[in-house]
Amino acid sequence: MKILVIHGPNLNLLGRREPGIYGTDTLAEIDAELVAYGKEKGIDLRTAQDNSEGAIIDLIHEAMTWADGIIINPAAYTHYSYAIYDALRASGLPSVEVHLSAIHRREKFRAHSVIAPACLEQIAGHGKRSYFIAIDVLYRYLNGD
Amino acid sequence: MKILVIHGPNLNLLGRREPGIYGTDTLAEIDAELVAYGKEKGIDLRTAQDNSEGAIIDLIHEAMTWADGIIINPAAYTHYSYAIYDALRASGLPSVEVHLSAIHRREKFRAHSVIAPACLEQIAGHGKRSYFIAIDVLYRYLNGD
Amino acid sequence: MKILVIHGPNLNLLGRREPGIYGTDTLAEIDAELVAYGKEKGIDLRTAQDNSEGAIIDLIHEAMTWADGIIINPAAYTHYSYAIYDALRASGLPSVEVHLSAIHRREKFRAHSVIAPACLEQIAGHGKRSYFIAIDVLYRYLNGD
Amino acid sequence: MKILVIHGPNLNLLGRREPGIYGTDTLAEIDAELVAYGKEKGIDLRTAQDNSEGAIIDLIHEAMTWADGIIINPAAYTHYSYAIYDALRASGLPSVEVHLSAIHRREKFRAHSVIAPACLEQIAGHGKRSYFIAIDVLYRYLNGD
Amino acid sequence: MKILVIHGPNLNLLGRREPGIYGTDTLAEIDAELVAYGKEKGIDLRTAQDNSEGAIIDLIHEAMTWADGIIINPAAYTHYSYAIYDALRASGLPSVEVHLSAIHRREKFRAHSVIAPACLEQIAGHGKRSYFIAIDVLYRYLNGD
Amino acid sequence: MKILVIHGPNLNLLGRREPGIYGTDTLAEIDAELVAYGKEKGIDLRTAQDNSEGAIIDLIHEAMTWADGIIINPAAYTHYSYAIYDALRASGLPSVEVHLSAIHRREKFRAHSVIAPACLEQIAGHGKRSYFIAIDVLYRYLNGD
Amino acid sequence: MKILVIHGPNLNLLGRREPGIYGTDTLAEIDAELVAYGKEKGIDLRTAQDNSEGAIIDLIHEAMTWADGIIINPAAYTHYSYAIYDALRASGLPSVEVHLSAIHRREKFRAHSVIAPACLEQIAGHGKRSYFIAIDVLYRYLNGD
Amino acid sequence: MKILVIHGPNLNLLGRREPGIYGTDTLAEIDAELVAYGKEKGIDLRTAQDNSEGAIIDLIHEAMTWADGIIINPAAYTHYSYAIYDALRASGLPSVEVHLSAIHRREKFRAHSVIAPACLEQIAGHGKRSYFIAIDVLYRYLNGD
Amino acid sequence: MKILVIHGPNLNLLGRREPGIYGTDTLAEIDAELVAYGKEKGIDLRTAQDNSEGAIIDLIHEAMTWADGIIINPAAYTHYSYAIYDALRASGLPSVEVHLSAIHRREKFRAHSVIAPACLEQIAGHGKRSYFIAIDVLYRYLNGD
Amino acid sequence: MKILVIHGPNLNLLGRREPGIYGTDTLAEIDAELVAYGKEKGIDLRTAQDNSEGAIIDLIHEAMTWADGIIINPAAYTHYSYAIYDALRASGLPSVEVHLSAIHRREKFRAHSVIAPACLEQIAGHGKRSYFIAIDVLYRYLNGD
Amino acid sequence: MKILVIHGPNLNLLGRREPGIYGTDTLAEIDAELVAYGKEKGIDLRTAQDNSEGAIIDLIHEAMTWADGIIINPAAYTHYSYAIYDALRASGLPSVEVHLSAIHRREKFRAHSVIAPACLEQIAGHGKRSYFIAIDVLYRYLNGD
Amino acid sequence: MKILVIHGPNLNLLGRREPGIYGTDTLAEIDAELVAYGKEKGIDLRTAQDNSEGAIIDLIHEAMTWADGIIINPAAYTHYSYAIYDALRASGLPSVEVHLSAIHRREKFRAHSVIAPACLEQIAGHGKRSYFIAIDVLYRYLNGD
Repeated sequence: MKILVIHGPNLNLLGRREPGIYGTDTLAEIDAELVAYGKEKGIDLRTAQDNSEGAIIDLIHEAMTWADGIIINPAAYTHYSYAIYDALRASGLPSVEVHLSAIHRREKFRAHSVIAPACLEQIAGHGKRSYFIAIDVLYRYLNGD
Repeated sequence: MKILVIHGPNLNLLGRREPGIYGTDTLAEIDAELVAYGKEKGIDLRTAQDNSEGAIIDLIHEAMTWADGIIINPAAYTHYSYAIYDALRASGLPSVEVHLSAIHRREKFRAHSVIAPACLEQIAGHGKRSYFIAIDVLYRYLNGD
Repeated sequence: MKILVIHGPNLNLLGRREPGIYGTDTLAEIDAELVAYGKEKGIDLRTAQDNSEGAIIDLIHEAMTWADGIIINPAAYTHYSYAIYDALRASGLPSVEVHLSAIHRREKFRAHSVIAPACLEQIAGHGKRSYFIAIDVLYRYLNGD
Repeated sequence: MKILVIHGPNLNLLGRREPGIYGTDTLAEIDAELVAYGKEKGIDLRTAQDNSEGAIIDLIHEAMTWADGIIINPAAYTHYSYAIYDALRASGLPSVEVHLSAIHRREKFRAHSVIAPACLEQIAGHGKRSYFIAIDVLYRYLNGD
Repeated sequence: MKILVIHGPNLNLLGRREPGIYGTDTLAEIDAELVAYGKEKGIDLRTAQDNSEGAIIDLIHEAMTWADGIIINPAAYTHYSYAIYDALRASGLPSVEVHLSAIHRREKFRAHSVIAPACLEQIAGHGKRSYFIAIDVLYRYLNGD
Repeated sequence: MKILVIHGPNLNLLGRREPGIYGTDTLAEIDAELVAYGKEKGIDLRTAQDNSEGAIIDLIHEAMTWADGIIINPAAYTHYSYAIYDALRASGLPSVEVHLSAIHRREKFRAHSVIAPACLEQIAGHGKRSYFIAIDVLYRYLNGD
Repeated sequence: MKILVIHGPNLNLLGRREPGIYGTDTLAEIDAELVAYGKEKGIDLRTAQDNSEGAIIDLIHEAMTWADGIIINPAAYTHYSYAIYDALRASGLPSVEVHLSAIHRREKFRAHSVIAPACLEQIAGHGKRSYFIAIDVLYRYLNGD
Repeated sequence: MKILVIHGPNLNLLGRREPGIYGTDTLAEIDAELVAYGKEKGIDLRTAQDNSEGAIIDLIHEAMTWADGIIINPAAYTHYSYAIYDALRASGLPSVEVHLSAIHRREKFRAHSVIAPACLEQIAGHGKRSYFIAIDVLYRYLNGD
Repeated sequence: MKILVIHGPNLNLLGRREPGIYGTDTLAEIDAELVAYGKEKGIDLRTAQDNSEGAIIDLIHEAMTWADGIIINPAAYTHYSYAIYDALRASGLPSVEVHLSAIHRREKFRAHSVIAPACLEQIAGHGKRSYFIAIDVLYRYLNGD
Repeated sequence: MKILVIHGPNLNLLGRREPGIYGTDTLAEIDAELVAYGKEKGIDLRTAQDNSEGAIIDLIHEAMTWADGIIINPAAYTHYSYAIYDALRASGLPSVEVHLSAIHRREKFRAHSVIAPACLEQIAGHGKRSYFIAIDVLYRYLNGD
Repeated sequence: MKILVIHGPNLNLLGRREPGIYGTDTLAEIDAELVAYGKEKGIDLRTAQDNSEGAIIDLIHEAMTWADGIIINPAAYTHYSYAIYDALRASGLPSVEVHLSAIHRREKFRAHSVIAPACLEQIAGHGKRSYFIAIDVLYRYLNGD
Repeated sequence: MKILVIHGPNLNLLGRREPGIYGTDTLAEIDAELVAYGKEKGIDLRTAQDNSEGAIIDLIHEAMTWADGIIINPAAYTHYSYAIYDALRASGLPSVEVHLSAIHRREKFRAHSVIAPACLEQIAGHGKRSYFIAIDVLYRYLNGD
């Protein structure tokens, strides 16, 4: 089983940015934990981060050639990138949307996700634990369980 | 670890009602699987169903005396029962909201949950598997993991 | 042919409450007329009243075991009880919604029915005659006429 | 002079629930103070609490046989129970709506009361003192003063 | 008892147009059935069809000189012809609005009728049977029954 | 100076229809008074009534060949006939909109006029006197006074 | 190949009305050019104009007996004539909606077309050239090209 | 005459993605047909595709140095890229917006184009034929025909 | 004191594009004036322009390593780029938003800025002078004056 | 017959302010013409101007002791002064609202008058002639003509 | 204990204005009763009335130097005077808003109070008795009771 | 160069009112600093404060006779005084709107300014420093710099 984890814009700053909201782990540290947790479950999990909407679409297109599913934290693109929504739907890959914070309880514009309708599930508000829940959901789904 | 699973109005008809949307398992069959899955993980899981809003509130109040967490499928009450929302918040118990179908893709009135803001997470659209994911989420949360 | 007539909250006060709007007949008197009219047409017609949303749902579920159709005056629940809407749809029984007064010409909140989409027809504004029209409609429907 | 005080859903938890908002008195303690204050003014004041919407409607109907007025804290039902609104209007009894907290300054859904139009006055935001003001208002009204 | 049945724009195409929605009977066939059903009940029932809003208003005005009631299927004019609404109200004749299809479940613009407030009742969604129910309603009304 | 007065749909019923709102004069009587008042001021005033939107547009087009101004009571067409609005603008003739009743205080749909932006002024709420004021306004305008 | 071109209300005034917006060609001149252009492509193209909504519906019904497609400039009816929308859909004929001016950049009410959903395409803003583009589109469509 | 055709995000997947909606031709095949059709009419037509909003803006800027017009299928950017709208307006080049599917009949967010106001015309819903119609429109415009 | 000035999409066309709105200075000329004005006040001011949202985010991230403040003209991204908003907030750098034209008086979509809440101030409508005012504001702020 | 004409805020600047919209006459000159026109018709007409809302209310109260009617140009207060609306209604004096410009065609906030419902008529868009029409209307009304 | 009672615009007309709504007592009579009632409870109560918003703000500022609380009937200013709202909040004095009539049941604009959020309570709909209830509320509050 | 600084309602309380939001300086102290800063730049700066809308309009009118520009903090009038907006526009004087606090981040009603469209710029959120920035902006503007 192969999974791509995509981190969207500004997530490269994790650990340095508003730790009260986003925690103190850097992205590299979180990625390492995710890969390790994947390995435990027999998943080949790869990660990527990009600030560019176009580059994220390219990542999704490439995943069509090798991955079984996608976990994506679209960050601010969550709220307006219909292009990423289209890319996920076009890919045909089962996807899970992830957010560190409880986006529904922050600024009003964060309450609406244009990407969620292309995903199996949206997991938000558990800090980095959101990614682990997402792996559980996708793993269970891909096993037809 | 002790968990109460509450099924809201009309869910007693499961298996007999619109199987294309809700599946063919009866509520009794699903409850048995949930209890078994709980046992595997060392969870004492109990279930209840009621069509009355007031009775569901009573169930939540009673759970304050014995349970560590709640999984609730509020069915139609999802969309207007601020009283259940208040009950969950007042209980102080971590809760997960569950739906069999992808409520965001059905009638428009089903797109809004007044109960979700009182819950850790809303899991919807995976059929009976939604309950299992909810157990995973609550289990991970109660273990502080 | 068997029909259940359900009267919703506060209708037990009929005859005592705002007679300018609701008329001077008590609920018992109306029920007697309905049963008599049913008998004329060869219909076994039974009636029930309850102030509780949950109890009304239970009535609908029970009707699945014996009735051919439902006539329901949901009173105030008309405007927010998605749970009764779900119950009617789940029951699979042809239903007609009834109101004594012309609900579209009273307070604004009475203009919208969340239950109507689960019914064959909404009959409103004819006083107690609304129930008789509803019997005509349901009778004609059940006869495939 | 006879007055019924009705406490709506979740108010049985008073004193145990979010004391920063609702204070530390239990419902039993508040009820005792209200009865005492009534006695001072020559009022026979009785109290009741229920989590069920239908049961609250029944309470109002019964009050029609003995009480001169109603004080009601509808809690979460404030925001959607048109059935309780109908019951109060049908009862013909002068009523005062009460809230412990300043509902207009909390979550947005609490800003609108569907029940207020059936009441003489809405008193909110004074903690348990709201009930005493309500007694004053009703007392003054029933004395035609 | 004399009744005028008015069919609005495009209904002359009945039987040729979208039979899945409107059925396979032509307007002439339906008119014949309506006249026959009227005769059974002792009603002198006449029918007319026109595509022009102005001509429909003229028909209503003329009916003031001979008819006891009107049954009207305003078709698309349902949604914007305040002039027909005014004509019905000015006529002083009891009227029933009829639709073949369940207009509330089709395109959004069909959900609102500007004409209904001038009618005793709106009957929709029963195919040609809607006209028969309308005759029942009007017959019952004119008999003061 | 030549003026055309156009009366829209249902105004042929004046004197017979809701006299509490529209008065007891028939249209013929009002027309005679208008012509007489015109003669006093040296105005050749002609009148017309039609229930058809298309016919009213034709009247406006013809007026382009002989009239100096138009007074129009569009009745129900006031609220949706962009075609009459276009006709008035295309005619290039100064126009005054007239209503017998205070349309802003009746049903909500009567509060908005799509025709007013093509007119010098809207005069409403003075009964038949509205027409006389309209003549004054148009007379003053055509005299460049 | 046979095509009917329908011009809606007020278009008979073309060339005389607001030439800055609509150009200086009369309707007769444009019709002649359209017929000639049709002849070039082997199309039997006929034209008609009417100010009456009902008459336009009649034109569409008649076209069902001889034409292969319709080009229609509904003018002001664009914005509210659901009856013409119904006629076009009922006709089953492929249709193209045409406007001389860029309706989306003029008064706000012109931004919305209720007729467009019944057409293959809406062509607007090219002056009389809009009709030629419409012929191209319809020609290409009827040739299955 | 020189024309640039720009294909927006995810269109590189054409032929592989939802063929029921988008057809079975690949982008390379469509591009070849467009170039050939251009050659027939004496147009030097070039094509480009990019998933990045910034890169599409760069393409438009470069076209200012050599092209006479632009045909653009902005795909998902249609609905929010005011930056592409600004680029088209700043370029001063006549442009036509193209969509394969009838965007007004799909998800609600696809009903609104922020780019259309910068274009001569929007052509949608004809599959790949939309591009050919766009070439016709632009060709006719550039010939001042 | 070190300041980064960022120019968003299409601003590379300044001087060539709609001079009535944006003036005749090229971006290079404006940048030279800004650098000179900075030097006068002892500010090391650097400038950058990019059409890509992702690249602008990268610029902001890099500025975290050397700059004391940011002046940004987000151009069209002003209205939807929550990603740039997040980048500015995450950077922790005091920022001023700048626009050449009075955006509140142009197209409606330009009236709302999603970026302004992350800035000290929004300066708009003074042509290139807006940048100088922005430098004054930031200078005063960084001096704690 | 005695009439008070009230000019609201900023009208003291007439003749000096935006003459393209408001004309070149000063307020003193207009007042003189109004008084003269009143004298012709046997009306004792007095005028007043004030920038203060409170002072305008005082003027209305005083008029209750001597005037038969009021003509008021509330200027900007038109759009929010419910206090002036209350004063006019409380006064019981027939009133006419006047505006120099066509307020419905200027900034959007000018389209709504909170004062008009307290007036017989609103006359707008005729420059100073609006006042003369208002005198005609009031004169005709007070004569019961 | 010292209390200032402020009466807003048009309340000087009390007793003369719409007695069906406001009663027959003059303001002087009501003030005398209020002072007397105050004296009974040991309150030094003073009253004031003004039609000017600015003067009411001055009254509130002055009250900061001597009063313990404010009772205010802002009349029409209730609905738009954010300046009075600011004055009450700035004063730091506990305040109660009073209305004679049930403002929520009259014209729509009266349903919203911009001042209420600065007050302890809003008392409305009891005629002059509203002021007495307000005194009770303020007295109870100032006694910390 | 001569500038008038106008402080609106309740600003006379500065230093005494909510210092967390408005700071501890009194208005007299701020005015002294503003005059001094003006003197430095060769500006004759005068200040005024008033709680009355009418008086503020008078101040603006008087400024037309001596001042070159206006700085105005309209306080609560910001949100509804179209009369002050009109006065500023009529004055023809360049104006800058000032607020101490970041009005866009406080109560919702403070987010909208009806006065800003009459001003060169709105400066908000810098405490008393907002006035100094406003002087800079106006100085730069009046110098045509």
